[in-house]
Amino acid sequence: MTALANLDRNRPVAIHVQISDQFRTLIATGQWPPSYRLPSEPELAQELSVSRGTLRKALHTLTSEGLLRQVPGRGTFVTAATIEPAIAQKLSTLSEDYASQGIVATTEVIATGLVLPPPPVSALLHIPTRGKVFRFFRRHVTKDGPVALLHNYVDATNVPGIEDVDFTSEQLFATLEGVYHLPIATGRRTFSAQRADADVASQLDLAECEPVQYLEQITYLAGGKPIEYSDVWIRSDRLRVTSVLSR
Amino acid sequence: MTALANLDRNRPVAIHVQISDQFRTLIATGQWPPSYRLPSEPELAQELSVSRGTLRKALHTLTSEGLLRQVPGRGTFVTAATIEPAIAQKLSTLSEDYASQGIVATTEVIATGLVLPPPPVSALLHIPTRGKVFRFFRRHVTKDGPVALLHNYVDATNVPGIEDVDFTSEQLFATLEGVYHLPIATGRRTFSAQRADADVASQLDLAECEPVQYLEQITYLAGGKPIEYSDVWIRSDRLRVTSVLSR
Repeated sequence: MTALANLDRNRPVAIHVQISDQFRTLIATGQWPPSYRLPSEPELAQELSVSRGTLRKALHTLTSEGLLRQVPGRGTFVTAATIEPAIAQKLSTLSEDYASQGIVATTEVIATGLVLPPPPVSALLHIPTRGKVFRFFRRHVTKDGPVALLHNYVDATNVPGIEDVDFTSEQLFATLEGVYHLPIATGRRTFSAQRADADVASQLDLAECEPVQYLEQITYLAGGKPIEYSDVWIRSDRLRVTSVLSR
Repeated sequence: MTALANLDRNRPVAIHVQISDQFRTLIATGQWPPSYRLPSEPELAQELSVSRGTLRKALHTLTSEGLLRQVPGRGTFVTAATIEPAIAQKLSTLSEDYASQGIVATTEVIATGLVLPPPPVSALLHIPTRGKVFRFFRRHVTKDGPVALLHNYVDATNVPGIEDVDFTSEQLFATLEGVYHLPIATGRRTFSAQRADADVASQLDLAECEPVQYLEQITYLAGGKPIEYSDVWIRSDRLRVTSVLSR
């Protein structure tokens, strides 16, 4: 365990405040890094020579500040400063993962419409010559600023009228599944690091050539027909793709 | 389907060679991009007005060149030019994924030894003050050059004598599990895009500040004790982390 400083019972500062101040410093200086699991409450209480009640007051302060997170049965952890979606581990969407982590994100619609697909999209979605796709460009923004830029393409023959859906409030996967009854079954996602080009940099408030996390996705219906293709660019300082895996 | 060119039965080039030449061009120009699933053999044979046998000769040529991959029950796909490990989806190691994809990679050991851990590693592995870790820096190299740089740290108290293992031939996880009987149970991996610093750039043959895929890992034993920490930097032009997921 990191050696903890002695508490000063003669100072006019409550003991639980001295403890929460000390823990806040350990977190701020990285001695307790993101994802660090704190020693158990009995160990901490003994090391600090305080009651469990006093310790819990301090932990409660830091939990309500969002610096610590208590996971029933696993312990108390230092919170990550970034959003941590499980999109490499589950076929969830970013919006679904924001919701499950209590992150408030708004969606800005940049462009929608029926268009001729760019060549790789045409081939990957098996679009016939002169066939169209529904193009759907969005940006996710949290209180810290833009987090992700998403370019989605859906085979238009499967989604008549989709250009009239209000995607500032509706979600794409939920619409495909709920409104068009398209049984999305599987997806293939690849992750790589890219340099931001001029458009990506501008949308994500990055300097051009800054690194961005790039995700390419193809989703398939039950039966194997490809239905949707997307390019997603993510700011790694605000969102880290996270997988918790079993051997 | 992409319109296919007519075959010329008067040219002194075998029909199956004309077909494989045409498909090779479609792949090279990106009209058939990586992961593209070709139309079925009956569809292709009909479109080209050739027998299934002739078509299969052409497909066999491209499969043996590594440009196409036949997946029983799913069809024929254009091969990706990059290694595609499932490390975001399973707690497999890169070495295990190279082996399952038939990639030949060698491991170069850069540094090993018992050292005092850097502060975040010390905290994340719960190393006591003045406790040591086994530090293990490696590089994976394929015929195309370096692919990944790996910095691993293992709590030294759990692995007496590990500094004498020959890691040019032995694998780390296999050694922890097989030699030290450490039951690796779970792992937490986060993925982000970073700029290569001077050391990473030099080890991966990149210009400084090129984007690299960064992976941070903490592995836990059954029971929850953290046992191993690693930093991994990956060249995205040679390796893309890939997940095939079900909704």
